[in-house]
Amino acid sequence: MRINEGVEWGAHCAVVLAMLPDGASLPATRLAEYHGIPAPYLAKSLQALMRAGIVESMTGRHGGYRLGKPASEISLLDVFQAVEGDDTFFRCTEIRRQGPSRVAARAYPPTCGIAAAMWRAEASWRDELSAVTVRDLAVQVMAQAPKAAIVKGSKWLATTLAARNHP
Amino acid sequence: MRINEGVEWGAHCAVVLAMLPDGASLPATRLAEYHGIPAPYLAKSLQALMRAGIVESMTGRHGGYRLGKPASEISLLDVFQAVEGDDTFFRCTEIRRQGPSRVAARAYPPTCGIAAAMWRAEASWRDELSAVTVRDLAVQVMAQAPKAAIVKGSKWLATTLAARNHP
Repeated sequence: MRINEGVEWGAHCAVVLAMLPDGASLPATRLAEYHGIPAPYLAKSLQALMRAGIVESMTGRHGGYRLGKPASEISLLDVFQAVEGDDTFFRCTEIRRQGPSRVAARAYPPTCGIAAAMWRAEASWRDELSAVTVRDLAVQVMAQAPKAAIVKGSKWLATTLAARNHP
Repeated sequence: MRINEGVEWGAHCAVVLAMLPDGASLPATRLAEYHGIPAPYLAKSLQALMRAGIVESMTGRHGGYRLGKPASEISLLDVFQAVEGDDTFFRCTEIRRQGPSRVAARAYPPTCGIAAAMWRAEASWRDELSAVTVRDLAVQVMAQAPKAAIVKGSKWLATTLAARNHP
């Protein structure tokens, strides 16, 4: 069982967008360039984030993506669910009600004990991810990333934004 | 992202095997019949449980599957990992080290903050599942399943085991 890589990409993009100056945006091609990933694949993740309101798309000459709400209000769970959906990982097919021991459905407790245990674990996973915001991650990147990488990244961003304003 | 249904089947089979009298075993076809699921699919799950030592296969006239260790020593996480493997759900492809901000790999902290958060959530998920044993689940079934289902299931089991001993 593997999480779609669009979740990783979407989270990284959200963190970069959280660092943009007010009013700025970046098109998908620039976000792809910054992360060294193929633009067509990334576009799909960005569209998923947009459907979830995590990013919004600005049209026009300076168009591109920016966060759709404050970075402190976007959790890593939001990013995950935008890309992967919010179905549970475990789907109970009620096999306890099949075979020779079968009795009327109404006689069973509402949730099979196996499903209940699986879903408790998923709730715990969700709780952890919903406690981490894009703002937390952005603060952590600025604190922990190599200084040289921050300098290079900032330079790229400044050049890219300037070129968009004065092409 | 969806958990393979072999996990659900494997967990239910382990619970039934935990209820067998000492020395008894059940072949895959009977376990499939009991759960109302296709025997060829279930065989695959049982083989995965066997590779993990959760069940063992007895050969001979009374052959079949039985638990490979005490039910109190088999967790739901063991069953999950037997079927799904023990890879993390999230795979970090280190995209923080790509693109125009890239610097030497040794300059980065060992784990990307996004991966660290994803893996903390997975650890929490694993902790929950490793705290639930097949014995816990068997006790819960006996306490919560409809009485009529327990009577029917016990009758099926007694008949099935008797037929194997005196065919």
